Amino acid sequence: MVSVSEATQILNSVSFKLMVQTIRLEEADQCVLAEEIRSDRDLPPFNRVAMDGVALASKTFKKDHLFTIEATQPAGSPQLKLQDPANCIKVMTGAMLPENTDTVIPFEETTIESNRVRINLDHVPAGLNIHKQGADSKKDDLLLPTGQLISPAEVAMLASVGKPEIKVFEFPKTAIISTGDELVDVHETPKPYQVRRSNTYALQAAMKKMGWHASRFHVADNKDLIRSNLSQCLNQNDILILSGGVSKGEYDFIPSVLHELGIHKLFHNISQRPGKPFWFGVSNDHRKVVFALPGNPVSTFLNFYRYVKPWMYKQMGITEKPKWAILASDFNFQPKLTYFLQVKVQNEQGQWRAYPIPGGGSGDFVNLNLVDGFLELPLEKTDFKAGEVFPFLPFR
Amino acid sequence: MVSVSEATQILNSVSFKLMVQTIRLEEADQCVLAEEIRSDRDLPPFNRVAMDGVALASKTFKKDHLFTIEATQPAGSPQLKLQDPANCIKVMTGAMLPENTDTVIPFEETTIESNRVRINLDHVPAGLNIHKQGADSKKDDLLLPTGQLISPAEVAMLASVGKPEIKVFEFPKTAIISTGDELVDVHETPKPYQVRRSNTYALQAAMKKMGWHASRFHVADNKDLIRSNLSQCLNQNDILILSGGVSKGEYDFIPSVLHELGIHKLFHNISQRPGKPFWFGVSNDHRKVVFALPGNPVSTFLNFYRYVKPWMYKQMGITEKPKWAILASDFNFQPKLTYFLQVKVQNEQGQWRAYPIPGGGSGDFVNLNLVDGFLELPLEKTDFKAGEVFPFLPFR
Repeated sequence: MVSVSEATQILNSVSFKLMVQTIRLEEADQCVLAEEIRSDRDLPPFNRVAMDGVALASKTFKKDHLFTIEATQPAGSPQLKLQDPANCIKVMTGAMLPENTDTVIPFEETTIESNRVRINLDHVPAGLNIHKQGADSKKDDLLLPTGQLISPAEVAMLASVGKPEIKVFEFPKTAIISTGDELVDVHETPKPYQVRRSNTYALQAAMKKMGWHASRFHVADNKDLIRSNLSQCLNQNDILILSGGVSKGEYDFIPSVLHELGIHKLFHNISQRPGKPFWFGVSNDHRKVVFALPGNPVSTFLNFYRYVKPWMYKQMGITEKPKWAILASDFNFQPKLTYFLQVKVQNEQGQWRAYPIPGGGSGDFVNLNLVDGFLELPLEKTDFKAGEVFPFLPFR
Repeated sequence: MVSVSEATQILNSVSFKLMVQTIRLEEADQCVLAEEIRSDRDLPPFNRVAMDGVALASKTFKKDHLFTIEATQPAGSPQLKLQDPANCIKVMTGAMLPENTDTVIPFEETTIESNRVRINLDHVPAGLNIHKQGADSKKDDLLLPTGQLISPAEVAMLASVGKPEIKVFEFPKTAIISTGDELVDVHETPKPYQVRRSNTYALQAAMKKMGWHASRFHVADNKDLIRSNLSQCLNQNDILILSGGVSKGEYDFIPSVLHELGIHKLFHNISQRPGKPFWFGVSNDHRKVVFALPGNPVSTFLNFYRYVKPWMYKQMGITEKPKWAILASDFNFQPKLTYFLQVKVQNEQGQWRAYPIPGGGSGDFVNLNLVDGFLELPLEKTDFKAGEVFPFLPFR
């Protein structure tokens, strides 16, 4: 048995070499960059007009002067040049600022009289409504580091610097395997003593959200079948995520079979509730990694979000900062275990307040639909008071 | 010009009839339920053994009594019956509780001597380690309502109640269209006065994350071309999201062309920064909806997350509660506009503190990569003090 922090340390000590793949920008959201992204030009690449209006030379500005419009500078056209400093050039948002001008007066501040413009301002300083070349970043500046999780904001950036394809980390080949003779598939009608499988579907959905695709398998509680199936899965995959068969039951063959197949146990059992009988092991060469999670639905769910997901992201260079929430009402938990309390979290005036909805135990997956995540209550304490702050693990 | 709250009200008044589609459970994450989900049986469906151990009749318990093991009740097998109340039955997690037993003692609390068991406890009440039939929900209970956004927790539920296929709302056919002669595509090398398109890629990524698939188009700043392209897009789509061409520039043809095509303006210009020139309109029959967003990258981005996404979700029955964050340092904004301040948010002891990183204006998309969302500062005020709480719009 290890503690939650020991389990975390052991997981952190196991690193796994990821491959890099090239994908289209349209597929990039939620992927993790495996290359640095630098500007190929200054951003903006030129002194860019930021509002529709007229560009002029500020030093020639005089109140009530009528500026003759020499020309129009649209966006997407070569730079024009103001010929006479007493004139002006109409400019459109996104255009290059014309040569010999240094300020842009928006149409809202002007009165246009045929081909002449009156500026309805007393003073006109230089630099109005110009988005200066290089103001946001310079050519060759680092814009996005390796290990950056890509969201739509980063997609905009990648498009701007001309990356129709990008290098991202590839998720390893992974199989999700459930065991348990009581389990039938979703489309089947269970007998009175059976239930339908749900863990492998939930795990697959949680992983797909990260861009991590895995196949689903189910194996009966028979040691020979488990051995042959796990052996085959290990040949065809780098990572196995198992659900069930790791507890103290007579049909819990997973640990011994994994040992026979050359997967060495790094820990079995974490001093936590739910999800205590978690078994974790690797092959000698660290090329095969096995997360054998207990099969109760809440246990599987918690262990995935608390251990498996952060481990995978860590391989890509992402360490998420801990989140915190404020316990909203007193709670008591006696056993000497870290307790992952199911909570509904409300944002109240900028504070994350966590309302306990403990549910009916690790088999009660109905409760998961009522909550937003788990509050991690340390094993050193038994009485937890409203107002105390604890790490919060969201899953929505 | 309308205020932010007027714009929101106008958007809320436009409803759009969505179609319903049937999808596979494996595709369900991030979809929105278009049917109610009820239990097809009690959950759990039987008195379910919650730990590996022995089941016995609590009223016959005597300290130091040796219980003979009559049989083993595995998970996934028909219910056994205890023949002699002085005996016990070995039970595995997930099994049916045997008839004539009412409590389960985990192996950890027993000493097993060949076929007999000693219970290392002084008292054994009824009901230990049993997950009672119907404890989580009863047959026909409403488990998930129409309009539920599906996350992995709901996937587990849907699997458990036997839904290999589910009904979800279908996103309407949608086109994303950029205009602007200064824009070239991502794989092209821009001339000195050109920049690459980024808005349509960012919009497409933000929508894809919701499961909303849209095609991307670009049209030059030419009124006839815009008219013919928008007309075709309106024939083939129900929703258009435009980027650019809605400001006061001489090439901003979008509003007049949309009017010619029978799309009636419901508002143009919101008293906000960035993103003021937002134009919104619908066809007479409300079957075509057009969001014409200003083309500056930060403006497009803000307007999508503040208006378009909530509008779409509202059609599916989802109204997200406002989130709040605490301004971390004083900020000043003079114009009589609602200001959407770009902020980096930190979770500090359960408090969401928002650090202003205003950036270089609505053209500065580099800044979007440094922040987590927008703090909505109301137009009634100009001085915003550290510690004050404002609505927060996250985009990560």
